Formats: sequence, structure tokens, C-alpha cells
Amino acid sequence: MGIITFTSDLGNKDFYVSAVKGKILSLNPDAQIIDISHEIEKFNIIEAAFNVKNIIKDFPEKTVHIISVLPEATETSPHLICEYKKQYFIASDNGIFSLIFESNPDKIIEPVITYDSDSTTFPTKDIFAKIAAHLSKGGKPEDLGGIRDSYLERTTFLPVYSENFIQGTVIYIDSYGNLFTNITQRLFEDVRNKRRFTILIRGKEYRISSISKSYNDVPSGEIVALFSDTGYLEIANNLGNASNLLGLQKNDTIRIEFEQ
Amino acid sequence: MGIITFTSDLGNKDFYVSAVKGKILSLNPDAQIIDISHEIEKFNIIEAAFNVKNIIKDFPEKTVHIISVLPEATETSPHLICEYKKQYFIASDNGIFSLIFESNPDKIIEPVITYDSDSTTFPTKDIFAKIAAHLSKGGKPEDLGGIRDSYLERTTFLPVYSENFIQGTVIYIDSYGNLFTNITQRLFEDVRNKRRFTILIRGKEYRISSISKSYNDVPSGEIVALFSDTGYLEIANNLGNASNLLGLQKNDTIRIEFEQ
Amino acid sequence: MGIITFTSDLGNKDFYVSAVKGKILSLNPDAQIIDISHEIEKFNIIEAAFNVKNIIKDFPEKTVHIISVLPEATETSPHLICEYKKQYFIASDNGIFSLIFESNPDKIIEPVITYDSDSTTFPTKDIFAKIAAHLSKGGKPEDLGGIRDSYLERTTFLPVYSENFIQGTVIYIDSYGNLFTNITQRLFEDVRNKRRFTILIRGKEYRISSISKSYNDVPSGEIVALFSDTGYLEIANNLGNASNLLGLQKNDTIRIEFEQ
Repeated sequence: MGIITFTSDLGNKDFYVSAVKGKILSLNPDAQIIDISHEIEKFNIIEAAFNVKNIIKDFPEKTVHIISVLPEATETSPHLICEYKKQYFIASDNGIFSLIFESNPDKIIEPVITYDSDSTTFPTKDIFAKIAAHLSKGGKPEDLGGIRDSYLERTTFLPVYSENFIQGTVIYIDSYGNLFTNITQRLFEDVRNKRRFTILIRGKEYRISSISKSYNDVPSGEIVALFSDTGYLEIANNLGNASNLLGLQKNDTIRIEFEQ
Repeated sequence: MGIITFTSDLGNKDFYVSAVKGKILSLNPDAQIIDISHEIEKFNIIEAAFNVKNIIKDFPEKTVHIISVLPEATETSPHLICEYKKQYFIASDNGIFSLIFESNPDKIIEPVITYDSDSTTFPTKDIFAKIAAHLSKGGKPEDLGGIRDSYLERTTFLPVYSENFIQGTVIYIDSYGNLFTNITQRLFEDVRNKRRFTILIRGKEYRISSISKSYNDVPSGEIVALFSDTGYLEIANNLGNASNLLGLQKNDTIRIEFEQ
Repeated sequence: MGIITFTSDLGNKDFYVSAVKGKILSLNPDAQIIDISHEIEKFNIIEAAFNVKNIIKDFPEKTVHIISVLPEATETSPHLICEYKKQYFIASDNGIFSLIFESNPDKIIEPVITYDSDSTTFPTKDIFAKIAAHLSKGGKPEDLGGIRDSYLERTTFLPVYSENFIQGTVIYIDSYGNLFTNITQRLFEDVRNKRRFTILIRGKEYRISSISKSYNDVPSGEIVALFSDTGYLEIANNLGNASNLLGLQKNDTIRIEFEQ
């Protein structure tokens, strides 16, 4: 055994993803490799982070996560291994770790691994696959390099709020057109303090004043707000596409007003 | 071991499919999960049923099938486990079972499983994954709930026929543009009774008067009729796209006339 | 264990790919099946060959490769098994073997396998899956049929060159828009003979006079030439799409001129 997840913008058409898998299986024939997504928008570490962040709790301890978006190392952004919640995360130090983790990782290691050839165009295969094979066989990250104190912090837009409102943004739209905001259930409940509220979409064009537990709490075609499995406020359209219906895109604003 | 197949409209871009897999592997590290398709048209249980129906005979006994299209349970459509041809099928009672099975299942169980949290938006992970892990480890469906007599029957368009004709419809178009009709080989042979016949497409615009055994029984670019591996009459275009060439879509009519 | 790779134009939406996997696992429950790509352009054996060719070195000995593009056998193009670099390749004798291998295979076998039914529309499942299961369990190709001397040779465009120039063509464009030419590193170094050079793109519109080792050797948005992991000259756009930026498609010309 030894579970390795694989998230990338490599796409499903070309041979890249399978070359990485071949390399891993050559080094650890018992590895079980699970694709998270290879259809991440090219070079978009925010989208990759959102997907990885939301599967951590569903995988067992010791799972190894390969994250290949902007995987090339530079002198200022080396490849890193982070240990977080008893799982391992392998990526380039391009800011993605700070987008995935909600607290500091337990360990940061800068591995020293050599490329297979002069070409350094495919670090996911030459470097990440070797690290993942090592860790999935029970090896320690410390075997591969020295400890580091920190990684690149990347700031993201956080919701703005005061006593009577929260203003957040759409951070992800899934293939159903469901809109994920950056408003967490915890923030919502804290500010709400058991008061009535109205979620305002596109200014005041659409209003929702309750949180549902499932999509079909509302009739087909209606807009529904809920805290999904991700912990984020999600705006959906039961049996429809909320993004299309509401004309909302990533980075658009969602505002919640609380009764005064 | 323990094979679990997974059919859904969840798409391959978002983290959903892998979250379900992580949950299954957390509960049964030896499960082998095979994706049937995650590109089923959103909410289209007919398309999902067509795909699942056609792989049953290729998987071994005890295979567990997760079918996640409209997976949310309601009071009138609970989650069900069906045992059919010594395999297990997990889905919501939305009519899909009647679209997959050609005869009554041997067993119908209504499982009692609790969600992981207040949110009931992701039953495929919270409910189906747990059932699949249990069954793939050799557990019995009866361990999970009580026996039921029936599931929701959903009617589909069946071919119309008399002594001298069969009129069917296109029920599925694959990625090659091959057209699958709802006319089975058995019905065709029964009505045909060894007579000559003509398959009429788009009224009388295209005519085929023989059944081939493989696509390349006709020259490149020609239209060919055959009974595919699915048992259904298929209209194809050797090395081309029949749907585009003939301008045929799902639900369009195909008529077969037999010599009188 | 027993690794089987699977390359096809079957697409990821329909049940075909999983039916083949079900058949393999029914015959060898321990097989580990790795998808190379199922999004090969329909009927395009050149694209399939490019992808398979580039993963051979990353998979271990005894790996079995199923290649399903134009898989139907005819009297003149039977199904074949080739042993090459201690791996097995299963395909129809449609010319694809000559596009994958850089030297003669060690063995060519013409297997004798029966279809599951009268329908011969799905040889990948009825024939290739059975062969792959046999080989992945340690069986020999000779167990399945007789030895052959040769397979169909298919000619491809090779670069034209003289003492002072090489003229090649774009043979593949990946999902990033990276352009792969048919100019190998070996040919380039041989003709170059340590001289200065200029890579000319779209006549003389774009010029590159150095070979980089990684994409980010040039600033974001700039054009970069490198010998990728594949061994072919690749033209890329750091953090961009070279195919779109340069307006280059498959079969377009790339010319390298060397200092006289």
C-alpha cells in the first residue's frame, strides 16, 4: 500500500501524468495513486490549492500528496515537502502551501534530489515522483534533505466584515456551476450571532434568507445557500447551474447583511 | 481486493471524485476503484444507466457499483442497495435501478447510514462510500438495513413494432458519434423471422439492408449497421462520425421495414 | 501486480474503457492498470504512438501496453504482440508499431484469440484484454500464437538537413500549447558541431539562438527552445501557450540555421 494523490494542470490528454505514475510504480510497485484532478487551470495555484485543501480530511494518515502546478524550482523557490495533519505534501515553494494549510505544518523539508538528465523541464517526474515513492514506502522526509523554517506566504482575499455584514468573494466554481465563496461557516455563525440575515447576490437582485442542508431543500431551479462539505458558503441552483443563472464569475462579490 | 466501480456526473475537474475514493480507501485500503465515467451529463440518469448496464457482464461477481447521479435522498426516494446478477448496485431510488436491470434484482435493501456532519450535500461520500467499503470487504447488504419489496419504476420509450416493421429511437450517442438505438438483437431477429429488411434513417434518406459484424465491413466513410457488444442496434460510420454525417440526435427515430 | 498501460481514442465519457478494465480484472485481479490517455484524436495512430513512445522508459520491465486506436483486425492487418525493451505492446498491425519503436523489436507474435460473441466491434475488450491479462500474469506471448517476421512499416516525415541547416516539422502539441518537433537532440548536436545557430519560426518572424534547460530560463511570456524529456526539440512559451502565440499548428515547419 501507500496512497499517493496527484493534483496537476498537466491535463488528461498527454502522456505526462502516466509518465509520473510509471516512475512511481518503478520505485514502489505497491503504491496506490489517486488522481485528484489534472484539469486544474494552467498555472493556477489557487485552484489547485482549493481542490487539495478539500480532500485532506478524507484521506488516511501518511497519504502523500503530489501537487504539480508551477512545479519548476528556482533558487528562491525550491521544492519542499511539508508534513501537515500527519500527511505529506510535495510542491514547489510558489506560495501554494500557504493556500492549502489552515495552520502551520509540523515539518518543512527541502529535499536534495537529482534530475534524471540535463533537462529540468519535468520535475514532477524526476523529483516529485522519487520523493513520493520514498515517503509512500514509509521513508521519512528528513532522509531526503534538511529542515526549513518557512515557506512562501501568499496572501488571498479574505472576507471583509463588521458587526452587521460580511462581504466575501466567489473563489471557485465547480462543474455544476455551484459557487464557492471564501466565507466559512465559523465566520458566518460568529458574526450572525443567531440573528436573521439576507444573502445579497448581484447587488440586491437575488436574496436568500436561509441556509439549507441539501440542494433539494428548494424546488428545482431555485437558488439555495448552504455550507457544503468544504466548510465554505456555497450558492447553488437545485438541478441547475447557479453560475450561469446568476451571471456570477470567480472574484465576484457576495454580501450578507444581518438584522440590526 | 474488492472491486468498486464508480459512475457519476461529478466531472473530472473538481475534487469530488477523489474525495469519495479517499473515503473508501480509508475504510478499505485494499479496494480497487474503477471509474466507469464521471462525464455523465448532469442529472441524466438515463445516460448513467446506459453506461452501467453495459459493463455489468464484464465485471466479476461481487463487484460493487456506485452510481452517483441525483444521489440526494428524499423521504420518498431513499438510498438503496440492490443485488443483481451477484453484483451490488448503490444509488438513490430515483428510477435508475429500473433503467439498468433487465429482470428483478435478487435483493433490495434500504441502508441506514449516518452523515458525517450536518451537511447532506455529498451523500456519495458520506453514504455510498461507506456502503461500498462495507460490501467490498465481504460484508452483506443486510448488515446495513432492512429489506424492501420494490424501487421506483421509470418508464422509457420502447420500440414500437408490428409484423412488418420496428420503429425505435436513438438512446445514446458515443464519443465517436456512433448511434445506439433501443432496438435489441432479440427483437430484431424475432420480428425479422429471416426476411429481408431495410433500415430507414431520416425518413427514407439513408437505407441500410444488411447487418455487419464490424465497422470496417464497409469502406471508410460509409454507414454501417451492427449489433454491438451492448446487444443494441448501432448505426455507425466507418472511420467517421455517424451522428454528424446523418444529422441524428438522441430521441430521433430509426425505422426498420421487413419484406412482406 | 503486473502493470498494464492503456492508450486509446475511446474517450473518457463512455463505458468502453472501463469495460476493458473489468475484463482484465476478471482474468487477473492483481493487474494494475494505468491510463496513458483515452483522449487521443479519433483514429490518429501518430498521436497515439507519440504518447506511448514517451512513457516506455518510465515503466518497469514486463509492463504490458494496450494501444487501442484503429484496433480492428483485417486479413492484412492482424492483431500483434511485440516485445521491445523487455516490455510488451499489443495493437493492430496498422503501422503504429513502426511509429513507436526506434529499433527492431525482439519478438513479434500473431496471437490467436477468439471473440466473446459474433460481434467483432470491440477487439480491445475481447482480444487485447485477454492478451494483457495473460502477459501480466507472467505468461509468454508465444503461448498465444506464432512468430512473425515483420509488421507494417509506416513512413513519417523526417527532418531534412544538410551541413548548415535542419528543417523539421511540428509533430505534436501538448495541452499547454508546447510544440514538439521531429528534431532529436542527437541530430541537432551532430549537425551543429558546436557552432552557433538560430531557430527560425514562421519564416524569420521569431528567432531563438540558445537552448534552455527549463521553461523558466526565460522571462514569463517569452519563447524558449529546449530538449524536453522526450528527446525532441520543443518550442514553448514560459507561462503561456506557444501554439497560440506563434500561430503554429501540427505539420508546420521549424528551421534551424547554423553559422557557416
